[in-house]
Amino acid sequence: METSGNFFVELQKNLKIKPQNKTLYKEAFTHSSVNLKTSEGNPLNFERLEYLGDAVLNSIVAEFLFHYYPNAKEGALTKLRAKIVSRSKLNEIGKQMKLFAIAEISHHNNFLGDNIHGNLLESLTGALFIDKGYYKTKEYIIQNIITPYIDMESLDSDILSHKALLLEWGQKNREVFDFETAHTEGLDPKVNYSCQIFYQQKCIAKAKAASKKKAEEKAARIAVRALKIKAANNEV
Amino acid sequence: METSGNFFVELQKNLKIKPQNKTLYKEAFTHSSVNLKTSEGNPLNFERLEYLGDAVLNSIVAEFLFHYYPNAKEGALTKLRAKIVSRSKLNEIGKQMKLFAIAEISHHNNFLGDNIHGNLLESLTGALFIDKGYYKTKEYIIQNIITPYIDMESLDSDILSHKALLLEWGQKNREVFDFETAHTEGLDPKVNYSCQIFYQQKCIAKAKAASKKKAEEKAARIAVRALKIKAANNEV
Repeated sequence: METSGNFFVELQKNLKIKPQNKTLYKEAFTHSSVNLKTSEGNPLNFERLEYLGDAVLNSIVAEFLFHYYPNAKEGALTKLRAKIVSRSKLNEIGKQMKLFAIAEISHHNNFLGDNIHGNLLESLTGALFIDKGYYKTKEYIIQNIITPYIDMESLDSDILSHKALLLEWGQKNREVFDFETAHTEGLDPKVNYSCQIFYQQKCIAKAKAASKKKAEEKAARIAVRALKIKAANNEV
Repeated sequence: METSGNFFVELQKNLKIKPQNKTLYKEAFTHSSVNLKTSEGNPLNFERLEYLGDAVLNSIVAEFLFHYYPNAKEGALTKLRAKIVSRSKLNEIGKQMKLFAIAEISHHNNFLGDNIHGNLLESLTGALFIDKGYYKTKEYIIQNIITPYIDMESLDSDILSHKALLLEWGQKNREVFDFETAHTEGLDPKVNYSCQIFYQQKCIAKAKAASKKKAEEKAARIAVRALKIKAANNEV
């Protein structure tokens, strides 16, 4: 491959990776369009490492979230993980990491679409995993992918229940929140339910919505912001 | 929990697990119907560990197959993995491992369906992973789940391409297979394509099908059986 010299320089400079097994990283950055073969005549490209990296990345992100949100339920964790390892998010991260710039791709193959960026991110993960093992790969993913590219606060804000967060915080801090929810038949069914949240005898949030659950969640979000409560932020 | 005494005896006897952190395994075998809470008031049941174990199991199986089939393509590996970690397969394995017998489940909750067996298998994997780490868990899964419960030969026989297997074998053994494929317009479009495979100057397989690809695959399957070729069986 022509860019061999630059490749390992870039790998270390931009991606902070010092390979043990250099061949693996070459494989991780070789697209099928290059039509490389192994000495045994099998195709040599990033697809096998991408398959492996996909599963490893999923597991690392699952573990990261498991510890990051020690009280979140399975459903919330599953949704958060899906958001982080979504095709679009991985494409976006792979693009920002400029993985494409060091990939070997045949020039005949002009249109690859956006997935190439996420695919390279997965194959890089696969190469790291084989080269350095699960725990070093986890460290790399947290330091170089999750920390710089995933905004945990904006990620969970539309997913985790604010009511649950509020009650959890109350439990921890021995504070009580009273939810007063009322049902009023009005002209607009969108605001048939209203919820007020009382904290230390004061109403700190109120909201209206189409259902009891929605009104409570809406009010809880206001309360969470008013009290500047953050989701559990335990280090891994 | 009432069965505490027996639980750890069974865990070691039947499942060959010596826990470091006993609480984790209790959690892994506690169903939400028991309505247990942590000291902080959060629900304590196997669901979070199931979420984690699902991802870890996927990664371990992905890695196992990656090494087991060093020449298989991404697509074939993905299909094989999906077969192993399918809901029905995990339920079947969990049932055979008798995980349900040591689970804490409220007796009011009579009907749980078959998924409970697979869910317990996943939560057990999650507990092992937290307790003993990725590599010990991988060892456990290979020795106690994949080896006894997954029949690799029957698994790949209907999935991997027989043509690829044949060509791979030829490459390794320096033998050449000639595929002679013919197109004949007949009355029945289902047999418009015919394929003959020649090996050492003899026709060792022939088949007819609706497309070139199908006829070749059908003939290749016959050839694979005739030559008693098995899929690559490298140890991990």
